[in-house]
Amino acid sequence: MASGYSTNEYVDGILSGNRSVLSRAITLIESTNETHHEQAFEIIEKCLPHSGNSIRVGITGVPGVGKSTFIDALGKYLINMENKVAVLAVDPSSTKTKGSILGDKTRMENLSANENAYVRPSPSAGSLGGVTATTRETMLLCEAAGYNIILIETVGVGQSETEVANMVDFFMLLMLAGAGDELQGIKRGIMEMADAVIINKADGDNVAPANKAAQLYRNALGLFPPTALGWVPQVTTCSALENTQITDCWNLVSDYMSLANEKNGLQAKRKKQLSNWFNHAVESELKRKFFHSPEVESRLNELKTQVIEGMISPIAAARKLIT
Amino acid sequence: MASGYSTNEYVDGILSGNRSVLSRAITLIESTNETHHEQAFEIIEKCLPHSGNSIRVGITGVPGVGKSTFIDALGKYLINMENKVAVLAVDPSSTKTKGSILGDKTRMENLSANENAYVRPSPSAGSLGGVTATTRETMLLCEAAGYNIILIETVGVGQSETEVANMVDFFMLLMLAGAGDELQGIKRGIMEMADAVIINKADGDNVAPANKAAQLYRNALGLFPPTALGWVPQVTTCSALENTQITDCWNLVSDYMSLANEKNGLQAKRKKQLSNWFNHAVESELKRKFFHSPEVESRLNELKTQVIEGMISPIAAARKLIT
Repeated sequence: MASGYSTNEYVDGILSGNRSVLSRAITLIESTNETHHEQAFEIIEKCLPHSGNSIRVGITGVPGVGKSTFIDALGKYLINMENKVAVLAVDPSSTKTKGSILGDKTRMENLSANENAYVRPSPSAGSLGGVTATTRETMLLCEAAGYNIILIETVGVGQSETEVANMVDFFMLLMLAGAGDELQGIKRGIMEMADAVIINKADGDNVAPANKAAQLYRNALGLFPPTALGWVPQVTTCSALENTQITDCWNLVSDYMSLANEKNGLQAKRKKQLSNWFNHAVESELKRKFFHSPEVESRLNELKTQVIEGMISPIAAARKLIT
Repeated sequence: MASGYSTNEYVDGILSGNRSVLSRAITLIESTNETHHEQAFEIIEKCLPHSGNSIRVGITGVPGVGKSTFIDALGKYLINMENKVAVLAVDPSSTKTKGSILGDKTRMENLSANENAYVRPSPSAGSLGGVTATTRETMLLCEAAGYNIILIETVGVGQSETEVANMVDFFMLLMLAGAGDELQGIKRGIMEMADAVIINKADGDNVAPANKAAQLYRNALGLFPPTALGWVPQVTTCSALENTQITDCWNLVSDYMSLANEKNGLQAKRKKQLSNWFNHAVESELKRKFFHSPEVESRLNELKTQVIEGMISPIAAARKLIT
């Protein structure tokens, strides 16, 4: 019982909405210590029946697009509407953009000071199964703790966007007017995962360019096929800084949820996500066991070099590694 | 030696460009018989040093967009330019569009009657490691047999487009003017994998709508980030039926290859593809070994049901399955 609480104490604390207990439980999930893991799994299993009752929204965009300000504004708006909001950050991006650490932290501290908000920064990159593995389970615990809206933030340039898009109900992409520069940073493929594109910083002199950009994206997204649910990705402008059109942004989520409920699509989508997650977890666990030995690792690297140099075909190399 | 030839006879036949031997070797690769597999691997290993000297192009688009006619026109154009062209089909799609089987077959027979073309239809879906696993190796054998351009066709609605996009140098998406209908069929995510969008059937009354569609797609693709190589996806119209603008289509590939050579990008892209393929092969092989037993399979299905019903978390279920 290295963590101090018993499993039941954790679960009771989470279900009663105790944020300090919730935080310690999440730390347990993120721990790489095997003993912690056993207890973490027990907690998750017991919280599972109390999870699932939230709207899950992924929010992505490159650094500089104003994600923190947007999430701050959206979070406050949602809290004013009597919601309890949890904000989970996925990418450990702050190391790259030193300038914004302080700004982010200040904003997050403001939001997290609100008793109806819970802000959880990125897990360490060393977490078992990758950062997104723990993000999913963190989400379940937040739901069990009574948060009915979960906002998951990623930076739009890493490996995790696809996984995040696959764990949420609605995926938002934040962009700026003047498509040239920020496009250099964003990863290919993200645009087509978006359920909505939000053109942020539509304020002052930037309103007209933002509206023009919105129209461009609207035309472009209209050329994409609709999602499985029949949803055509939507575009709107907003200014997180001046707190305008935040309602418009959330209305898109509400419209989507109405459509999903109407078509009974949310349950289907989430069941599919659970099934994918399970497949993914089985593969991760298989690989973790297999690659655990140092011999396998060194043999793998040796074979990979031979593959890249064209000395052996990838399938033959794989067979050599595994038999 | 169930297949009749020795490994060296196969390899010598392939390297001398003997199409009948090439076909038998590919059949060996596609076989699910373990004995055949061993010999297939030996052949692949011996052909490997002679592979890699082709331009690899993926071509996708929904049924009805005119892929067969396009490939026929493009293939003849390339052969007239002194190339040797191999056409590999990935999806066993013909079962769905019965009407076009005969048409496809006739066209393919025309092209394959040319001594500088080699047309290979889809492998059976039961192939070990999926159809795309054998497609990669078939591509290597075709290169060893002297084909310097490989065209790989997929139907744009299946599971294989991403994999095909990851095994070629250049990925083309065929579309029609009048974006409404065919978009219903195409899979989300394909648009953003395309290095070029070709608006086919730009003939007769359809020329103006096709040009308009091309402009729309050009605007849309301009909003996407460029590829790793700095390539901005291009759009052109053509009429495969009337054999117009086929040159324009191929010029896009040539431009791309020039850019790639200039930036030394082709080798980098292919090394990355090989590395990905190896990772993928290792995972497939691990899974194949693991899921081989019927007990694992039944336990897997049981756990998956529990996961989908929310009775157990996916990660806990994965651990139960594997420990």
